[in-house]
Amino acid sequence: MKIKRALISLWDKEGAEKLAKSLQQMGVEIVSTGNTAKFLEENGVEVTPVEKVTGSPEILDGRVKTLHPKIHGGILAKESTAHQAELDKLDIKRIDLVAVNLYPFTEVIKSKDTDLDTALENIDIGGPTMVRAAAKNYKKCVVLVDTQDYNLVLDELKNEDDVSTELRKKLAVKAFSHTAKYDGAITEYLSQGEYLSILAKKKDALRYGENPHQQADVFSNPNDKSVSLINANKLNGKELSYNNYNDADAALNAVVEFGTEKPAVVAVKHATPCGIGQAENLKDAFIKARKCDEKSIFGGIVAVNTKVDEDTAKEMNQIFLEIVIAPSFTKEALEVLKKKKNLRLLEVDMSKEEASWEFKSINGGLLRQSKNQSKFLTEDIKVACGDLPKDKMEEILFAYKSVKHVKSNAIAVIKGTATVGLGCGATKRIDAAYKALEQAKENGGGEILASDAFFPFEDVVNAAANYNIKYILQPGGSKNDHLSIEACKKHGITMILTKMRHFKH
Amino acid sequence: MKIKRALISLWDKEGAEKLAKSLQQMGVEIVSTGNTAKFLEENGVEVTPVEKVTGSPEILDGRVKTLHPKIHGGILAKESTAHQAELDKLDIKRIDLVAVNLYPFTEVIKSKDTDLDTALENIDIGGPTMVRAAAKNYKKCVVLVDTQDYNLVLDELKNEDDVSTELRKKLAVKAFSHTAKYDGAITEYLSQGEYLSILAKKKDALRYGENPHQQADVFSNPNDKSVSLINANKLNGKELSYNNYNDADAALNAVVEFGTEKPAVVAVKHATPCGIGQAENLKDAFIKARKCDEKSIFGGIVAVNTKVDEDTAKEMNQIFLEIVIAPSFTKEALEVLKKKKNLRLLEVDMSKEEASWEFKSINGGLLRQSKNQSKFLTEDIKVACGDLPKDKMEEILFAYKSVKHVKSNAIAVIKGTATVGLGCGATKRIDAAYKALEQAKENGGGEILASDAFFPFEDVVNAAANYNIKYILQPGGSKNDHLSIEACKKHGITMILTKMRHFKH
Repeated sequence: MKIKRALISLWDKEGAEKLAKSLQQMGVEIVSTGNTAKFLEENGVEVTPVEKVTGSPEILDGRVKTLHPKIHGGILAKESTAHQAELDKLDIKRIDLVAVNLYPFTEVIKSKDTDLDTALENIDIGGPTMVRAAAKNYKKCVVLVDTQDYNLVLDELKNEDDVSTELRKKLAVKAFSHTAKYDGAITEYLSQGEYLSILAKKKDALRYGENPHQQADVFSNPNDKSVSLINANKLNGKELSYNNYNDADAALNAVVEFGTEKPAVVAVKHATPCGIGQAENLKDAFIKARKCDEKSIFGGIVAVNTKVDEDTAKEMNQIFLEIVIAPSFTKEALEVLKKKKNLRLLEVDMSKEEASWEFKSINGGLLRQSKNQSKFLTEDIKVACGDLPKDKMEEILFAYKSVKHVKSNAIAVIKGTATVGLGCGATKRIDAAYKALEQAKENGGGEILASDAFFPFEDVVNAAANYNIKYILQPGGSKNDHLSIEACKKHGITMILTKMRHFKH
Repeated sequence: MKIKRALISLWDKEGAEKLAKSLQQMGVEIVSTGNTAKFLEENGVEVTPVEKVTGSPEILDGRVKTLHPKIHGGILAKESTAHQAELDKLDIKRIDLVAVNLYPFTEVIKSKDTDLDTALENIDIGGPTMVRAAAKNYKKCVVLVDTQDYNLVLDELKNEDDVSTELRKKLAVKAFSHTAKYDGAITEYLSQGEYLSILAKKKDALRYGENPHQQADVFSNPNDKSVSLINANKLNGKELSYNNYNDADAALNAVVEFGTEKPAVVAVKHATPCGIGQAENLKDAFIKARKCDEKSIFGGIVAVNTKVDEDTAKEMNQIFLEIVIAPSFTKEALEVLKKKKNLRLLEVDMSKEEASWEFKSINGGLLRQSKNQSKFLTEDIKVACGDLPKDKMEEILFAYKSVKHVKSNAIAVIKGTATVGLGCGATKRIDAAYKALEQAKENGGGEILASDAFFPFEDVVNAAANYNIKYILQPGGSKNDHLSIEACKKHGITMILTKMRHFKH
């Protein structure tokens, strides 16, 4: 047995008893500190107190207990006769395993009762030092920072009498990621947001990026527990590509906007919706979304907000889709959809919170912003001219939610609760308007036109009038609002000001 | 004088002599380790070796020298009678200042000679522990990790006899950012890229994000030294907004594509080019870029690749621009442009390298990819049908570079070395094509049509023929390439396959 002595010092004591007992049964001496020692002794583990090893008392309210050559010599000595001779001379015994976890600083600072001094008091110095020392010397000293890994180590010890270099290294990586994250959190806190710390773990190496000649990876961000693709349950199909992730994320964010009360479907192509529909049942919602642009949806991504049933699945199967994202699928729906071997089916828990922040790199740095989580508030809108019957509000709300997720400049033309024309990504608003209005005309005409930002001129209103639009939804706020409103009055169009811009690039 | 004893242990000895001598002149005792002690003694500083403080020898090839209660008790004791009593009892003297910097792990691992064992040997354990301990107890112990900060501390000590709490805290933040970054780099290295570590420092809090109801910040990423806005020299105008940064980054990346040999101008609106021009002189290049879409450029951002002269400045002043980005401006040009008080003028060093990586968050994680740095290689292209005269190559190259920076689906129509029509951000390629072709027609017609991705059908070719396009540039690679090529043959259009897709979303 290669492990003769273990040092255990844990804030989170889950699994500690089993770990210590199992090690002790294998003949390992357990060295421990303060509360951990007490906890283990109460559970029948024989413990050598760390003070006995160091010959020094724990001092300064526990600020200094393990920062001692007897501990760190024991952890850091390499496999060499010279190092062994030094240990022997100084009567230092090796420590072959360190199990340490840190008081969760991020939890502490979340509490409103935590003032600066309390936060400082909770910064662990001895713990990270043991973790880092063991991780540096992982070939001689196993390091455990995660309860989840205890059994991996115990199993190898039982079967092989030692821990493999491979597992040792994996645990060392985890240890350094733990201290990096810990100090990142402290830096963010103490600097009051002057620093941004991200430590993300690779989820997958992607075949390539936006284009085949670009390398790419997808990482999970443990700080972001929002509704996401990252932990989606993939029920069918091959791995997602870079563009799949990008498009699917856009589709997911858009469909979540519609809540779960009434079935909604968002179809996405090139990271922007090409069709959105809402109806009493999912099949009809899907048909509405598909009908908006039957060509763009080809090879697209569809996200829905309710369980996919067999009827909807059959409709979906009539076209080529890359991905279907849903909170769940009926058994029958799965059978239908799985007939398409390559179709990715992603089950995503949509009851989770929306994401709070988003960021993107720019050369030399990065931009971070809070996600556009704003909701439509009926009391905030202003009817600038014309009538707004109460029974139109559902459609107005649908229009608002739809245009919010279309890339800017964005114009959405709506009929009932379906997009019938979408203009997106244009450098001029009037171009987006004509694209959306023309498409709507081909689809039998629309009734509501929604714009992501205000109108600097009355041109969009005049264009809308030519296509028989009855309601226009826009934030307002241009110094030329009066021109657009006058134009609406002239054309008998109701103008609704939402007071909220929704640029999305 | 509040600082009585300082511990100095430095890999980078820049400024060390002055720091130690100045402190000593103020009566501070200097404790130091190994090479630092030797260096200071050689420079006439009286030094207490750390072994004398600990009463323990440096052991295990220097792996353990400062990990000792006499050091860490000295650093970590709070300002309290209880703590002071403990120190007195154990004969521990306080350490009031710690100056430590770490062997630059990122430099070590860049060397090809560095194997895993060398890298592990270079992971510092004692240094980060002193840094973290002092930073935790910053109210009692000043921590210095950056040569740049030595004078700040010396000045306060000279003038105030102590270091202010404000500066102490600022230095503590820097200390934790230093250890967070250090362990992040170790994690990335040991995991062979399984982790991504970013520690970015806020450059500015932005007024708001993409929309007024979103919060936003811009951060600098010290790991990214590429050509960027982050360290731009702002010569005029107010702070940049979120959308300014986003648009300006797109404009900068696009203009860098054109090198510096021949003047080029890229105008950007909504994060995608609305006009690109190249000419023998910058003024003509600007006029070309502007002419492509005189409405979209209103309130837009212009990036140029050569020094802005007075003539160009006068042309620029004829329209409302938000930002002009250039490698430099003549004195006369500046005078002209500064007449517009709000126009941001950004001087950016364009001789720097292009960025290597880009990333963006998705809910729950992030996507990272290598930047699309691919260059047009004449030998890689294939003329699928028709003639390609040598003197057309400059325009073909211009078309290739232009469409690469337009948001997908992207179509660029070119006449000479100017875009005359741009279709962008469309969910269907044919929509982008019609938009670009119609715009080109209004601008007097184009000759070359470039597409960012292949043609699944021959529809774009047929549309191009109706608008008298003579050359079509596209990657090729569709199973229906033959249909598009046949259509080109029929219409007498030269089809050039670039074999390189350029999606950009």
